[in-house]
Amino acid sequence: MINAGIDLGGTAIKAGLVTENGEIIARSSRETKAGRPAEALIRDMADCIGESAAAAGLSLREIRSVGIGIPGFADNRQGIGFACDNLSQNPIPFRAGMQEILDLPVRLINDANAAAWGESRFGAGKGADSCVLLTLGTGVGCGIITGGKPLSGHWGRAGEAGHMVIAADGIPCYCGRKGCLEQYCSATALVRAARQAGAAFPDSVLGGMAKENPGEISAKKIADLAREGDPQAAAVFGEFVRYLALALDTLIKLLDPEVILIGGGVSHAGRFLLDAVKEKIPTGEMGNIRPLPEIGLAKLGNDAGLIGAALAEDL
Amino acid sequence: MINAGIDLGGTAIKAGLVTENGEIIARSSRETKAGRPAEALIRDMADCIGESAAAAGLSLREIRSVGIGIPGFADNRQGIGFACDNLSQNPIPFRAGMQEILDLPVRLINDANAAAWGESRFGAGKGADSCVLLTLGTGVGCGIITGGKPLSGHWGRAGEAGHMVIAADGIPCYCGRKGCLEQYCSATALVRAARQAGAAFPDSVLGGMAKENPGEISAKKIADLAREGDPQAAAVFGEFVRYLALALDTLIKLLDPEVILIGGGVSHAGRFLLDAVKEKIPTGEMGNIRPLPEIGLAKLGNDAGLIGAALAEDL
Repeated sequence: MINAGIDLGGTAIKAGLVTENGEIIARSSRETKAGRPAEALIRDMADCIGESAAAAGLSLREIRSVGIGIPGFADNRQGIGFACDNLSQNPIPFRAGMQEILDLPVRLINDANAAAWGESRFGAGKGADSCVLLTLGTGVGCGIITGGKPLSGHWGRAGEAGHMVIAADGIPCYCGRKGCLEQYCSATALVRAARQAGAAFPDSVLGGMAKENPGEISAKKIADLAREGDPQAAAVFGEFVRYLALALDTLIKLLDPEVILIGGGVSHAGRFLLDAVKEKIPTGEMGNIRPLPEIGLAKLGNDAGLIGAALAEDL
Repeated sequence: MINAGIDLGGTAIKAGLVTENGEIIARSSRETKAGRPAEALIRDMADCIGESAAAAGLSLREIRSVGIGIPGFADNRQGIGFACDNLSQNPIPFRAGMQEILDLPVRLINDANAAAWGESRFGAGKGADSCVLLTLGTGVGCGIITGGKPLSGHWGRAGEAGHMVIAADGIPCYCGRKGCLEQYCSATALVRAARQAGAAFPDSVLGGMAKENPGEISAKKIADLAREGDPQAAAVFGEFVRYLALALDTLIKLLDPEVILIGGGVSHAGRFLLDAVKEKIPTGEMGNIRPLPEIGLAKLGNDAGLIGAALAEDL
């Protein structure tokens, strides 16, 4: 049983064919070229699936379905994507457009939900009945699996944890709110805090980097410096971890998932990050008298969204 | 089809028989007498069911099941209740204890989930596939319905919205955290803020009440004064509403429910509260480009938990 999956992003269309075991047997990609008409975009998406099929030596009739993971709200009932901020038009009629070209069932899923679904089926959340994937990168992505299925919500907008407010009247967010999680726990926020620390302590390691090569200050670098005991990096990383633990604690309070996975650029800090976060989540009190969820690293990396989109037909 | 439901609270055991239409056809209650051995507590719970059956002229064999809504974490797999803070022992083996007395299927459910389930089946959330019930009283209770079922979580601790942190480093909570929702949006928090305003403005209406009859300052009274234009009450109520809107916004971000219901003492402020809250939830931006959920008042009042517990067998 072969399904086609598309991970549609602001810069690239990544398509592939995925087996029922979650293996990608062929791939194809194109530039998204955000801003162009939806017809041209969907045409390229369909072409990617055709190319993948050709590469795998399959006819389109041997493909069961097409799942599209979109960077916005996926209204699967209507087959429409909303708020695909990096793309051209809102809303985009993905299903109708795709089915004009390919005679296959088409399912829409939010890209973060697709990634969580992929991890839950074949990645670090395999076997768990409930799972939250937090992707800490440019922003904070979140996909929620409950009862063995992605939680997409009534309008397809569930799982927007990046814009849950964890600090009322806190750091202003581009979304108009103040104190959104994304302003504290994205890789962007971590790097920003490190640059601020560098400016405040010009003689520190971070200060030197901020002056000479600010582009070198990455989430991974900050975590490495913190692990080596650099005091400014340790302070910045410690605050990051404190807020992340607070967010995980809130997700446990509300959703009580079996597994929480951390992905994205910040997750390259690996076990050092996990250990630090776990230590900061309150235990033994209100709501946490039972064991904490298993807190681990995402495993499928950039393929999670493609695999999850391909498996969306099983939903 | 008749099911028995029990709403177990810190002060009272409320039991009843509920029809498949959500109608309560007989009731019985006892004092909880928190602190006594679990056997005596469970014995009284079973007696209440016997009494209800007698009152309805039914034999126990005509009752399909017993659902118990407990003030803590309901581990239905094991039939055990945890963290029933107001009760005697932790954990309490409700199912085993009850089945020693009554030969009936026994299902455990968290009391807030039971109330949400009752509202969702026969109250203000009827017909919705997803629904969140926030009960703003002494604390903040929360029950979540997704995909037509209560979300109980892996360890039965989901829906503890009262202890999600909305203001990092904010007002200290008895749970050990700082900035929990409960410290901003319970009736308790509203009354506390009004008393503080009364102390700060001794010549105001709230100031007079705080001096002469502080017990008169209730959530309802504060809302009434705010509606009449009293400046101190309006300011206190406005801050309360601001935090409540922030919490609802976060629940929409994460769960995107079809319906959000407000219950508990504060909900007696009615439409004045709803209108004020709806106005404060951001629309037209990140995550809220689709319509807001329907935001309404809970309808079943104190019966929601009993009805929902009785219907827990359908889960």
